[in-house]
Amino acid sequence: MKELKKAPIGVFDSGVGGLTVAREIMRQMPNESIVYFGDTARVPYGSKSGDTILRYSRQITKFLLTHDVKAIVIACNTASAYAADVLRAECDIPVIDVIEPGAVTAVGTTKNNKVGVIATRATISSKMYTNYLHSLRPQIKVYDKACPLLVPLVEEGWLYDGVTVEVIDRYTSELVRSGIDTLVLGCTHYPLLAHTIQKVVGEKVTLVNPAYETAKELARVLAEQNLLCENGAAVHKFYVSDGAEQFRTFANTILPCEVQQTKDVNIEAYE
Amino acid sequence: MKELKKAPIGVFDSGVGGLTVAREIMRQMPNESIVYFGDTARVPYGSKSGDTILRYSRQITKFLLTHDVKAIVIACNTASAYAADVLRAECDIPVIDVIEPGAVTAVGTTKNNKVGVIATRATISSKMYTNYLHSLRPQIKVYDKACPLLVPLVEEGWLYDGVTVEVIDRYTSELVRSGIDTLVLGCTHYPLLAHTIQKVVGEKVTLVNPAYETAKELARVLAEQNLLCENGAAVHKFYVSDGAEQFRTFANTILPCEVQQTKDVNIEAYE
Repeated sequence: MKELKKAPIGVFDSGVGGLTVAREIMRQMPNESIVYFGDTARVPYGSKSGDTILRYSRQITKFLLTHDVKAIVIACNTASAYAADVLRAECDIPVIDVIEPGAVTAVGTTKNNKVGVIATRATISSKMYTNYLHSLRPQIKVYDKACPLLVPLVEEGWLYDGVTVEVIDRYTSELVRSGIDTLVLGCTHYPLLAHTIQKVVGEKVTLVNPAYETAKELARVLAEQNLLCENGAAVHKFYVSDGAEQFRTFANTILPCEVQQTKDVNIEAYE
Repeated sequence: MKELKKAPIGVFDSGVGGLTVAREIMRQMPNESIVYFGDTARVPYGSKSGDTILRYSRQITKFLLTHDVKAIVIACNTASAYAADVLRAECDIPVIDVIEPGAVTAVGTTKNNKVGVIATRATISSKMYTNYLHSLRPQIKVYDKACPLLVPLVEEGWLYDGVTVEVIDRYTSELVRSGIDTLVLGCTHYPLLAHTIQKVVGEKVTLVNPAYETAKELARVLAEQNLLCENGAAVHKFYVSDGAEQFRTFANTILPCEVQQTKDVNIEAYE
């Protein structure tokens, strides 16, 4: 059991966005080790079919299991939608997705039942947040908006830029006018813009950060199964399917630890 | 021979960007029919390895050849870089890429040998424009800049927007200060921003639009081989690997003809 507690947590995303989830895990559970996989060769998942996303997610899960992970976190909205249930059925270890914790928190947060959701075009058209929020509380009115410019703005590093403020304002002004009191950041890149988004939408709107809520849910599940690692030094490993160096540079701008090495993996071999 | 003249021209891109090349072909050669393929399921090519790009380009070529095309236009910068030479060696019909015509024109345009190139991050890091320009005239000084926000701005439809003006200014101000007199629009999306880019960089800088130059080169090659179709109604067909409806909407905003139907193709079957 002691061995198992020391096992790392597998975290994966289509690219770099899931690092915001890894960051929350590091903050909330500083003794936990992480094996991160970013599918940078096949990013973005948003435009791909559900079958393809599932196949990719299975390959990545197989890769993570070779690292003897004790739990898997799907730190990607699209993969959460298309692969979470299947991976849960196929794996013996806990599988946490990124949608459910954010939706549960939004329902617990809203007082007027008006919830905003901002995400990529693919996530918005899948209606997965809307459906999940409605399944939790049918009377919730969801105001959603696709924000395709926000990911490239984050990847450009313009986190507090005037251009970014203007773009966020364009995307959110109608949601704010509709009277939302809660706004879900439905893309793993968006927590990096949380400060700027909060400034634009004003203090009356509570932001829900699924990265934070997912890490909390992970901690709850690990504690429940007596798998929490509460001492010892964490060791983090980073793998990508392409462009290890570029990934490392980006990771070092957002993680609280220094990423010294990132390895390329031929993920298609994990069938 | 008459039959062959009536045959369509195959045009392909990783997605919608190549439509600017198709548009130029329609404008310059109104009697020519086009079979367009946009690899929307696997876009973007920029982050993929050269081997993968070549494999995809071969599949698409095989698909286009089933339509008895008389020539192939690679309307994508990344595929031009990684697949043009191989496809030329493997095909019996003319293969035109999008890099060479733009580079040749830039060299013919510049008077002070200071040429700017704006493109996606992948195209800029490949240094293909720089190398090609230097091979044509070694004393040319190339000032290049990756502009990752421009494609999403085009796809958002913000072609003349204040935000777009500001972003273009950030990207190009250093090139303009360096004294470039010629600027190559090194991504097939950028011609849609030509008007806005020209306003920002000023009238002293001549824009080179590789879409326009590629269509000109195609006309030259077809005329040389006595393959030009100079009468009869053109019939255009559009195929994509995913999201036919979304593609059609975008195509109708930029093409001079109405796209009434777009078909999904399982491109991976063309091995």
